[in-house]
Amino acid sequence: MSTLPSPAARTLAGPDTPFAVVDVDRTRRNIARLRARADRLGVALRPHVKTAKSLDAAALLHDGAPGPVTVSTLAEAEAFAGAGYRDITYAVGIEPRKLPRVIALLRRGVTLRVLLDSTEQATFVAAAAREAGVALPAQIEIDCDGHRGGLKPDAPGLIGIGRVLHDAGCLDGVLTHAGESYFRPTAAERRAAARDERDAAVAAAGRLRAAGLPVPVVSVGSTPTAHAADDLTGVTELRAGTYVFFDLVMAGLGVCGLADLALSVVVTVIGHRPEYGWIVTDGGWMAMSRDRGTAAQPRDQGYGLVTDLSGTLIPGLVMTAASQEHGTLTARDGAVLPELPIGTRLRVLPNHACATAAQHHGYHVVDGARGTAAEPVIEAYWPRVYGW
Amino acid sequence: MSTLPSPAARTLAGPDTPFAVVDVDRTRRNIARLRARADRLGVALRPHVKTAKSLDAAALLHDGAPGPVTVSTLAEAEAFAGAGYRDITYAVGIEPRKLPRVIALLRRGVTLRVLLDSTEQATFVAAAAREAGVALPAQIEIDCDGHRGGLKPDAPGLIGIGRVLHDAGCLDGVLTHAGESYFRPTAAERRAAARDERDAAVAAAGRLRAAGLPVPVVSVGSTPTAHAADDLTGVTELRAGTYVFFDLVMAGLGVCGLADLALSVVVTVIGHRPEYGWIVTDGGWMAMSRDRGTAAQPRDQGYGLVTDLSGTLIPGLVMTAASQEHGTLTARDGAVLPELPIGTRLRVLPNHACATAAQHHGYHVVDGARGTAAEPVIEAYWPRVYGW
Repeated sequence: MSTLPSPAARTLAGPDTPFAVVDVDRTRRNIARLRARADRLGVALRPHVKTAKSLDAAALLHDGAPGPVTVSTLAEAEAFAGAGYRDITYAVGIEPRKLPRVIALLRRGVTLRVLLDSTEQATFVAAAAREAGVALPAQIEIDCDGHRGGLKPDAPGLIGIGRVLHDAGCLDGVLTHAGESYFRPTAAERRAAARDERDAAVAAAGRLRAAGLPVPVVSVGSTPTAHAADDLTGVTELRAGTYVFFDLVMAGLGVCGLADLALSVVVTVIGHRPEYGWIVTDGGWMAMSRDRGTAAQPRDQGYGLVTDLSGTLIPGLVMTAASQEHGTLTARDGAVLPELPIGTRLRVLPNHACATAAQHHGYHVVDGARGTAAEPVIEAYWPRVYGW
Repeated sequence: MSTLPSPAARTLAGPDTPFAVVDVDRTRRNIARLRARADRLGVALRPHVKTAKSLDAAALLHDGAPGPVTVSTLAEAEAFAGAGYRDITYAVGIEPRKLPRVIALLRRGVTLRVLLDSTEQATFVAAAAREAGVALPAQIEIDCDGHRGGLKPDAPGLIGIGRVLHDAGCLDGVLTHAGESYFRPTAAERRAAARDERDAAVAAAGRLRAAGLPVPVVSVGSTPTAHAADDLTGVTELRAGTYVFFDLVMAGLGVCGLADLALSVVVTVIGHRPEYGWIVTDGGWMAMSRDRGTAAQPRDQGYGLVTDLSGTLIPGLVMTAASQEHGTLTARDGAVLPELPIGTRLRVLPNHACATAAQHHGYHVVDGARGTAAEPVIEAYWPRVYGW
């Protein structure tokens, strides 16, 4: 764990608000839960570090060892390589001008796996690998649910791409991501999404193998499907990111409970508008992000649910509006607006952990396992990796 | 202007994407336009630096001199004080634990004006001023349109708050912000909002003065009302922030044209999904923010309109979806999806400049006055102030 920024700020009552807090006990439990699932399913786990973007948080993923990870930027790949990680998948489609940084990492001994879904990309990746004289592992992105990138498993171009990569020693595997599973409200639907995800990846790998092309890696995953999958036969590895912290979107789906949410933002009451039923805080969208993922769910949680500083939910209190540095809290479900004087500190649980975490440069870390204190002790400060 | 981060990255084709770009020529023109309006209206201008959060951008506000500014965080106040700014309004309601940093700035000779709207705040501000033995100028926030904080101009408590402040030598003025003007789609409605904003501030100042309390500052402003006001009699200063860069929300209101938008994000094409009509880029919500302000306007601009690298709009091309590091571009209005090979660089114009700028650590600066080049030259790098 990194050291604290200021020895004076020893509890959540200390640092100036707003700031992000991680409960390391909840984080550990979330990590252990998915690791147990992956073990049971017989697949390797390659967590996506784009949510926390923290070397300290990542140290909990593989018992302190630099195990396999997924990244969303080359800045993350470089930071993790610098900390000794040697097996990294960069899960965003590659473009030519990012190749020099990829090759520099490969030359440092990092197995950096890139992603692509076109002959165009396979051709320049193969050419770069030949020119640099390095092994440049590339995975073919497969589209399992029409969410974003990738080739359909039965796409005519799949074998040709595989061959271009194989001929240059680059063909590393196939990868898919069930992004639509974030919009599947029942466990049965997410289980079906996990099967579709598996089937798409396994079918694509099967076609490539039938054409004589070896496919070492068959990678699937998203937080909802990773927690729903019942059979991953044919899959070699599972990816997920948000599960490390979880958030209100995941709780709304039922993938986790509110007591699993490890990320929150500490804010301070700065005003009252009794005529409108508002409490005003110093935590606006700059601290929470503009993400309103729960707006698409049956239970819209506004910009977030509110707890006291100890982490205990305040029933019926919701952050319903945000400007840059102002948050508005209101009561719902017949709750009475609590009396919270100016200066009262609260914690807000976010819609989307990835987006809220990205508004901060690091996390003040508390340990819920030490019990519920009115002013929890800050155990550490974890800086975030930033930029691209 | 700060120096460039890398001498190799001399045009917008250089730095790795995504990154934020500011057109300094458009910025200068936007600044000059509002300055001319303020001069014509006979009020001082106190720009809000929360949008750009850049000392380099702020140097254009007052011809290079450190003139009066508004800030949204104490981190901004400290950064601007460090650069010689001596007249700063911190326009977010004050709470007790932020006072030590306020007093430290006052002791450095900075006139830092704080904001409040309750007797509770007035009392602890007055006590802190007395205890520290410093002048602690405080302004009373007035609510002109039910948008956020403040007292209604006729609120019974106004005079009492004014007296508590006055007795401690703290009463500096009144301040209001017509936040609802962002939702006024016609110039006539915004002109009316500007009158309401003025009337609320002037009425509150009048009541305080009638009670024998001096009110030196009568401060109003928002970007929409600042550009609509026709008579600011009784007002001493005008505030606005977004106007420095403008954005699609402001263009949608008609406060500016698309050719005034000074902020954009450079992204690269990383894939194609012809079966869905999508072009996929490496610019997702991490680069654009989750702000979808135009969703509430008649013309929803998705996550942004798209230009080529020179800044020329590509008709009908819109960024319609975002995940963390992926953007999806689609064609509308009968436009044909252009052929943009992998590696093509584009610029995306944001919904909300404040939110998109906040996703970046600085700006690569180009000068549109030098003409439209296929690969505009980067003139400078402007770092942003961050944190709280």
